[in-house]
Amino acid sequence: MGQTGNLIGFRPDIKVVDCTLRDGGLVNQFNFSKAFVDALYQTNIKAGVDYMEFGYKASKDLFEKEEYGKWKFCEEEDIRAVVGNNDSDMKLSVMADVGRTDFKTEIRHKKDSVIDMIRVAAYIHQIPAAIEMIQDAHEKGYETTVNIMAISQVGEAELKHGLDMIAESDVDIVYLADSYGACYPEQIRRITDRYMEMAARTGKKIGIHAHNNQQLAFANTLEALTRGAGYLDATVSGMGRGAGNCYMETLLAFLRNPRYDLAPVMEFVQTYMQAEKDKGYIWGYDIPYLLTGVMNVHPSKAIDFMDEKRTDYAEFYQELLDDMELK
Amino acid sequence: MGQTGNLIGFRPDIKVVDCTLRDGGLVNQFNFSKAFVDALYQTNIKAGVDYMEFGYKASKDLFEKEEYGKWKFCEEEDIRAVVGNNDSDMKLSVMADVGRTDFKTEIRHKKDSVIDMIRVAAYIHQIPAAIEMIQDAHEKGYETTVNIMAISQVGEAELKHGLDMIAESDVDIVYLADSYGACYPEQIRRITDRYMEMAARTGKKIGIHAHNNQQLAFANTLEALTRGAGYLDATVSGMGRGAGNCYMETLLAFLRNPRYDLAPVMEFVQTYMQAEKDKGYIWGYDIPYLLTGVMNVHPSKAIDFMDEKRTDYAEFYQELLDDMELK
Repeated sequence: MGQTGNLIGFRPDIKVVDCTLRDGGLVNQFNFSKAFVDALYQTNIKAGVDYMEFGYKASKDLFEKEEYGKWKFCEEEDIRAVVGNNDSDMKLSVMADVGRTDFKTEIRHKKDSVIDMIRVAAYIHQIPAAIEMIQDAHEKGYETTVNIMAISQVGEAELKHGLDMIAESDVDIVYLADSYGACYPEQIRRITDRYMEMAARTGKKIGIHAHNNQQLAFANTLEALTRGAGYLDATVSGMGRGAGNCYMETLLAFLRNPRYDLAPVMEFVQTYMQAEKDKGYIWGYDIPYLLTGVMNVHPSKAIDFMDEKRTDYAEFYQELLDDMELK
Repeated sequence: MGQTGNLIGFRPDIKVVDCTLRDGGLVNQFNFSKAFVDALYQTNIKAGVDYMEFGYKASKDLFEKEEYGKWKFCEEEDIRAVVGNNDSDMKLSVMADVGRTDFKTEIRHKKDSVIDMIRVAAYIHQIPAAIEMIQDAHEKGYETTVNIMAISQVGEAELKHGLDMIAESDVDIVYLADSYGACYPEQIRRITDRYMEMAARTGKKIGIHAHNNQQLAFANTLEALTRGAGYLDATVSGMGRGAGNCYMETLLAFLRNPRYDLAPVMEFVQTYMQAEKDKGYIWGYDIPYLLTGVMNVHPSKAIDFMDEKRTDYAEFYQELLDDMELK
């Protein structure tokens, strides 16, 4: 596998996926205002975004509806209240976590839904369960993805087995998700190359979902793109759990396809994003996330550190090192 | 030229250069407290930093001493007030801009100075003048660098001519400085490869100084490193003009050589860096810097935008586009 594309032309196979409501919802418990969601939908259409992810299809048995905003559950009528019948070129997606979605009952047939794509998030050991969900969604008529989470913790042999199973499924797009923000670009290159080998023999598409713990979310997205990934996740101002994601602003500024337009996103940022920060919601690169990223662990301890408004970074570093010793 | 090094071992030729006082001084007019500078010096020694840059050797004819902190001028006695005779493994550097330094009189002989290295910053058309300064510093007994600024605006033919002239000089280290934060990693790779070809035939060392306009300062530093650059500029918390620089924290967390220790830098950040931000000094990634970076222009308009506390990003984007049309 080698480089695809260059810095002047563009690849028509690239699809930009806006995950602001979904990954950003992990920051504010999905409590976005109606105005925010309406404006984001219109912004994405104007900006040429290919897919907008509204949130999760979480199980109402496992999660209390009162504790979260509506985009944790993505009821059909809530999406339609924003998009109507979605008379636009942009497709809509929702995410379903393995083990956390009543997919058989909660995901209706495509002909009865305005949703276009179901994205299934799974750890590597959950691939068989993910495939069951994918087949269900595929048979109901949806585009499907499988997003292998915490890719930085997946060994080469495990990845090969997982990709071999996925190759046999009906899934359309296979993501590498660097959930811990632990990967350097050269690791992303190696992993993307493994994915692309599978893609070359199956015709499946490859996607990347990056986190910004080491300020590498955009660089890692570029790296995967350069090696052939076409589905690129981003969020406005990088809003997402912990260190957040690849910034939509940096990604759209990079892409050369005239279908993409940065200006509407600028308008959205100046009107809506600072307001979210002013409410006290915290995301984006900071030292605690750098440390969990470098140590290749879940950002939960860093999120706790930030929530407690601690700033004793040196002590936190020692705590993480102590945790490593106990493993 | 191919990849050098890997993610487990380390390259002993790598040198980390702390530019916090010098590039960070462009944020606060070099008004660092004595406590800040003393602590940074001790921190860098403990962290294993190879060079600490104190500031500029600016001409006192061109710049009023009252308008800047002392690190704009880096008088010998001011440096010695911090480092004594610098009885440490860490070397000290200062920067001299072409045309802004009275180098013949202000840079004394090495035997009378605690400074180890003179770094000469030059735009590509100033290379002949830079070489005059380098020869002077070299003959006085210093290590020398030439830092080609705004590398994103240098054409291939110009770069070849510049590097050919530099190859004939006595300079020790040749930097690519992405002053506008305009380069993507694949451009850094191509440019570094040109530098490395010159290095291969002359024995000179190569360095990188990156800016974070597109959140790529660290990624671009890694890219240059991977292609053979050994001198790596960074600043604590990325403090530097506009979008700032490669973060020392991310760089030290990456490097595998046991000589480097992240912990002292964590201590320094928690004690000193938030305090600088609390004083109202602004640096680091933000949309205006992204836009000047993408458009490959000097960040001055973005700095003005931030100083004026404007947040109308969409309007600023249009203003920059208008400027492009007038060119």
